[in-house]
Amino acid sequence: MEKRTPIAVDQAVERVIQCRVTGETEYIDIQLANGRILAEDLIADHDVPAFNRSPYDGYAVRAKDTLGASVNTVITLNIVGHIGAGSVFDKEIKRMEAVRIMTGAEIPNGADAVIMLEDTNTNDDNTVQISQEMNFHQNISFQGEDVEKGSVLVSKGTKINPGIIALLATFGYQKVPVSKRPVFGVIATGSELLEIHQPLEKGKIRNSNAYMIIAQIERAGGKAKYFGQLSDDLDKSIKKIGEILNEVDFLITTGGVSVGDFDLLPEIYHHFGAEVLFNKVAMRPGSVTTVAQLDGKLLFGLSGNPSACYVGFELFAKPIIDSYLQKQMIGLKRAHAVLAVDFPKSNPFDRFIRGHVNNVNHQLEVKPSGKDKSNMVHSLANVNCFIHLLGGTEGYKKGSIVDILLLD
Amino acid sequence: MEKRTPIAVDQAVERVIQCRVTGETEYIDIQLANGRILAEDLIADHDVPAFNRSPYDGYAVRAKDTLGASVNTVITLNIVGHIGAGSVFDKEIKRMEAVRIMTGAEIPNGADAVIMLEDTNTNDDNTVQISQEMNFHQNISFQGEDVEKGSVLVSKGTKINPGIIALLATFGYQKVPVSKRPVFGVIATGSELLEIHQPLEKGKIRNSNAYMIIAQIERAGGKAKYFGQLSDDLDKSIKKIGEILNEVDFLITTGGVSVGDFDLLPEIYHHFGAEVLFNKVAMRPGSVTTVAQLDGKLLFGLSGNPSACYVGFELFAKPIIDSYLQKQMIGLKRAHAVLAVDFPKSNPFDRFIRGHVNNVNHQLEVKPSGKDKSNMVHSLANVNCFIHLLGGTEGYKKGSIVDILLLD
Repeated sequence: MEKRTPIAVDQAVERVIQCRVTGETEYIDIQLANGRILAEDLIADHDVPAFNRSPYDGYAVRAKDTLGASVNTVITLNIVGHIGAGSVFDKEIKRMEAVRIMTGAEIPNGADAVIMLEDTNTNDDNTVQISQEMNFHQNISFQGEDVEKGSVLVSKGTKINPGIIALLATFGYQKVPVSKRPVFGVIATGSELLEIHQPLEKGKIRNSNAYMIIAQIERAGGKAKYFGQLSDDLDKSIKKIGEILNEVDFLITTGGVSVGDFDLLPEIYHHFGAEVLFNKVAMRPGSVTTVAQLDGKLLFGLSGNPSACYVGFELFAKPIIDSYLQKQMIGLKRAHAVLAVDFPKSNPFDRFIRGHVNNVNHQLEVKPSGKDKSNMVHSLANVNCFIHLLGGTEGYKKGSIVDILLLD
Repeated sequence: MEKRTPIAVDQAVERVIQCRVTGETEYIDIQLANGRILAEDLIADHDVPAFNRSPYDGYAVRAKDTLGASVNTVITLNIVGHIGAGSVFDKEIKRMEAVRIMTGAEIPNGADAVIMLEDTNTNDDNTVQISQEMNFHQNISFQGEDVEKGSVLVSKGTKINPGIIALLATFGYQKVPVSKRPVFGVIATGSELLEIHQPLEKGKIRNSNAYMIIAQIERAGGKAKYFGQLSDDLDKSIKKIGEILNEVDFLITTGGVSVGDFDLLPEIYHHFGAEVLFNKVAMRPGSVTTVAQLDGKLLFGLSGNPSACYVGFELFAKPIIDSYLQKQMIGLKRAHAVLAVDFPKSNPFDRFIRGHVNNVNHQLEVKPSGKDKSNMVHSLANVNCFIHLLGGTEGYKKGSIVDILLLD
């Protein structure tokens, strides 16, 4: 049997990230941009406000005309216009004149203050009574006071959310520059695998890893192409993988990486002259994860064990998707959480335990996501984080603070 | 001017939820199911394990043949077969026989224990040496011990994630039952609005709300159809809305709900005989949010102010999407967080402040998401929660625990 030398998790991640490539920018309709990664800084194409505008419903006036106004000395101004939303007043306000103005409308020429509607009395004869002095520039939102034209409002690499969509629309981005999504080929290997639609047979299980990985790729922002299962025949497999490599940016295989009798993958890597970055990692699960590099394309050989496959993807493939998308944060987000149960096992290796984190009061509380014996089955459905326990530790008590890696 | 009577937020939400409808189930390919809502319980179509299987690489043996084995009394068994992954051994193990077995393979007839490979010595002459006694049923994973056929593994109403995809594949769901996404029509109103591609004009702003709402609908799991802007002409608007109502499950308009001079919406509701559930809510922002009901279809009249529009959608429309999708949780998820800054303003009304919540150590820390004056612009980009401050409170100190509503 082949002898493999495990490397530390951090070192393995580092080797993979060394091989990162960055994707191109594409321009897509703003209606499709939510959830994508902004590929250029979002820049204000105009001042905000774009013109001096009224923050209130009221009357635009000349402050000096209100000099001396008080409850006892009411001043009366002539209403010479009415500015609705979206319209402008194209004349100039003269002495003792006022213009009715709506929130957001442009301050007319000549006016230098706005008095709120509730502080006035409008008369039937088209005049308005004012009983307080206004200051010069009172209640005016000045052009550019919120945002100056040319300012960077959102940095490239940010995930677009509905609020950012509002800004993109405000600043005229009908087409939005986003990072192209990397295309991942997915292949399953393993002579024990049935496809979903096949009836069960003794000794076999249905292929679940490939579909799980497709979902993980999509969640991380990539695009998956499923190429089915690899045959047991080496020559056929080599031919198929050669063809797939022309169609994808990255390749993920599940299974076929253990030190076993029927594992094709090492031979295939060898045939193509791929450089194996590592084929054993000092961690559980996923110790047999293999990553190779071929002409700048990363080939991820994930374990056939569902948990190991899941963890291997998130630790090694997700940072490569993040890098390709030029995201500001590469890899899973780390946090701390309070362990809600005892975890008595000692950890000779780094462990990534499928966990479920929850907000309890104002704290993050985490527990392993599996229940009882049916560990694999339930833990995968419920997982929203990994609990990262360092190698060389002796188990953890309920209430300990542990490191977690968030999945969503 | 029309006089409106505000109702409490909870009461307004309750009135809307009274009008909920639930959507139908559709069956989609498993490769498209991630992120959708499961519309039926996920049921195990077979036991897990599906047969008695070996949890280890090793030899399947008859325990009684190992009776008396020890380091000093090594027992030798004849290797009569080799079970690779996915294959089965179709004979029965007889006295003093062993079968080489891989992890996951079926325990052959006659065998009742598995000894791990590392506890044996394999000889060249097709025999294996065993130096420890095995117990009856030692190291066998029995059919159904993890999951019994017919068990409910994931309940309907759960959002499908990659782990659930793995279970769906395992249990043969090539087509997955998911809730149909509700279709929302979106219309913008407001004579001050320009479309994205139009150059700026004095007195006008670009329409950002419609695109923001489209993104919010998609984030919540709905499908948006944008119908552009409503004209100022009442008859044309009535005709257009009548047509749209035939195409959608729900309608959202932005703008046109204030008590102003140019607001069409109340007239349109009146024309169709829609029942107005409320047209004023005792909250900030979004006090002028209007919701009406027409032949079982909800019409959401959101404010033209971006923040009010954003909040109005999340408080009133999102629970209706959740209900339609038959999600287990209706509405935004509540949590508590530590306020990271002083918030000195008093709150005569319930306030929903755009906030940004972060994990700091193992705590949730929140602050308003706006910066300085450019409040609207930055706060929308950065918002991932609302800070809910109750009406009648006097401001909050840094370090207080506040209620938040999570957006993602």
